Amino acid sequence: MPTINDIAVRLGVAKSTVSKAMNNADDISESLRKKVLETAVEIGYEKNRNKKNSPRKLCILVENMDYKSPSGFGHDLVLGFEQMAVPAGWQTEAVAITKEMQAEISYDVFMLSSHYEGAFILGLSLLDPWMEDLKTSKTPAVLYDNYIQDNPLVSYVGVNNTEGFKMAVSYLKELGHTRIGYLGGDMNSFISRERYQAYLHAMAQHGLDTDETLTGHSYFVSECTQKFLPVLLAHQATAILCEHDHLANSVMLHCVECGYRVPEDISIIGFDDAAISAFTQPPLTTIRQNRNALGRCGYYALASLLNQTFISSLLLRAELVVRESAGKAK
Amino acid sequence: MPTINDIAVRLGVAKSTVSKAMNNADDISESLRKKVLETAVEIGYEKNRNKKNSPRKLCILVENMDYKSPSGFGHDLVLGFEQMAVPAGWQTEAVAITKEMQAEISYDVFMLSSHYEGAFILGLSLLDPWMEDLKTSKTPAVLYDNYIQDNPLVSYVGVNNTEGFKMAVSYLKELGHTRIGYLGGDMNSFISRERYQAYLHAMAQHGLDTDETLTGHSYFVSECTQKFLPVLLAHQATAILCEHDHLANSVMLHCVECGYRVPEDISIIGFDDAAISAFTQPPLTTIRQNRNALGRCGYYALASLLNQTFISSLLLRAELVVRESAGKAK
Repeated sequence: MPTINDIAVRLGVAKSTVSKAMNNADDISESLRKKVLETAVEIGYEKNRNKKNSPRKLCILVENMDYKSPSGFGHDLVLGFEQMAVPAGWQTEAVAITKEMQAEISYDVFMLSSHYEGAFILGLSLLDPWMEDLKTSKTPAVLYDNYIQDNPLVSYVGVNNTEGFKMAVSYLKELGHTRIGYLGGDMNSFISRERYQAYLHAMAQHGLDTDETLTGHSYFVSECTQKFLPVLLAHQATAILCEHDHLANSVMLHCVECGYRVPEDISIIGFDDAAISAFTQPPLTTIRQNRNALGRCGYYALASLLNQTFISSLLLRAELVVRESAGKAK
Repeated sequence: MPTINDIAVRLGVAKSTVSKAMNNADDISESLRKKVLETAVEIGYEKNRNKKNSPRKLCILVENMDYKSPSGFGHDLVLGFEQMAVPAGWQTEAVAITKEMQAEISYDVFMLSSHYEGAFILGLSLLDPWMEDLKTSKTPAVLYDNYIQDNPLVSYVGVNNTEGFKMAVSYLKELGHTRIGYLGGDMNSFISRERYQAYLHAMAQHGLDTDETLTGHSYFVSECTQKFLPVLLAHQATAILCEHDHLANSVMLHCVECGYRVPEDISIIGFDDAAISAFTQPPLTTIRQNRNALGRCGYYALASLLNQTFISSLLLRAELVVRESAGKAK
């Protein structure tokens, strides 16, 4: 196993310099510190993290998602993870991350410099710099709703979208719907791709046709409601599946503005069962993912990776929560 | 929650009769006992299994698979499961099952009558009677290498076959192979279907053609080697992926009998990393699944189901184990 000495030899500096750099000493320049950390990652150095009885640390990295307020989408994911990790003796830290920060420091160097042994990562898009890093990273990571094909040190936890959409389409078909549309985010998100594929798959399984007049994708909710929704309505969609509940809520509001009644004229189903969904007008029928359980499973997957058990994916069942936004086809 | 009294009322017998039937008393006929158990399952009765400090029990149901000898395919699956379950306070029992027994007694009734709270089930084919029962069963079950779409009380654990075949095809392509064949079992096995699809997917991803002269399927290994293998060889296959290692071993033996050298004339890759695979002639390159880890994950999934966390699937990474049965294309 590589030692501090190997880093010193590689960089042609004293062992004490490397040690100072690793421990954030004041008299080491930022550029040297960065070089030391990058070399440490490169040669596979693993800090003895139990030294001096310091606590062992895991982090929860969150981009673009509220996790502090109880109604925030990430709240229960973080809570579930911590409910498992803390009793097991880990210190956990939730850290908000940005694209800019990812571009500045690689994932492995960030983890090593902050003394984290593993990460639970929420909210990365496919364009995030660390998605590239994770293809070859050496520090265990569990991704919520993202998948890295070739690195056994990275696991994917999420909900089974295929099952979720199958339930929703089956439910709508029983209500008499055949023109079932779909609105979702752009294709720079793993989960947007997955859910769109799940919609297409469910429609095909139920023998229902799909075409471009029935679907729309945009990063912007307003583009979905103003550009695509009118097309779907003009082409006799009687029900619309939305990639997530906030989009579903906007779609419902927009339908009402345009003179359509929900669910009498048009049925809407969301995905996630977000905090808002029981309180929309009408209360939203949606496909639920149990985010507390996903956080707990995220910890299990990370503990497994740290224990050399390489989980590729762990998917929970989706659950159809029937409220009032979907009804019989006209 | 339904009680013994509900069963008594439903059947028009005394409560004491139901109680005797549930506790295997001698003076109750087998047919009445069966009726009591079936009614209990039907109305959702759950025995108070902690009564009288009796141990809580899980079972490992095994069909058509050796699990007693250390070299048996099921051995490490059972061991891994027990290594997690027993320290957690469960009593476990491994039980060999047959199609005949499944036809006689439903899964739920079997579980209730034997006081098992959940099952880890190995080796069922798609034609097994209990595969039908499991679509609506009420007793938590984790299936190794089988998947039930619509019942949240049933989880699937296994290895990621798609990743496994992608690694194998990628490895063969780097060795110069383009005519890569496939031999596997019949389509009455979930895992045979999965692996064949994984082969087709991997070939397509690598831009390689497949056709019926390159693939063969049979429940019988001898049909694969005697009927299909000659077709593959006659159609210039330079490498063959086999669904499992015992088939790969037979294919290698047959190739040698027909005057082909392995790997000089034909490369063979298996799947599973069975006990035999390091000792075949030549030692077999194969896609490994960590069966001990799968047994451990099987316990985790079952404990999760018992705790109302509904895992749909938990897949481990596959690993390519390079030995000597695959080499450069001629």
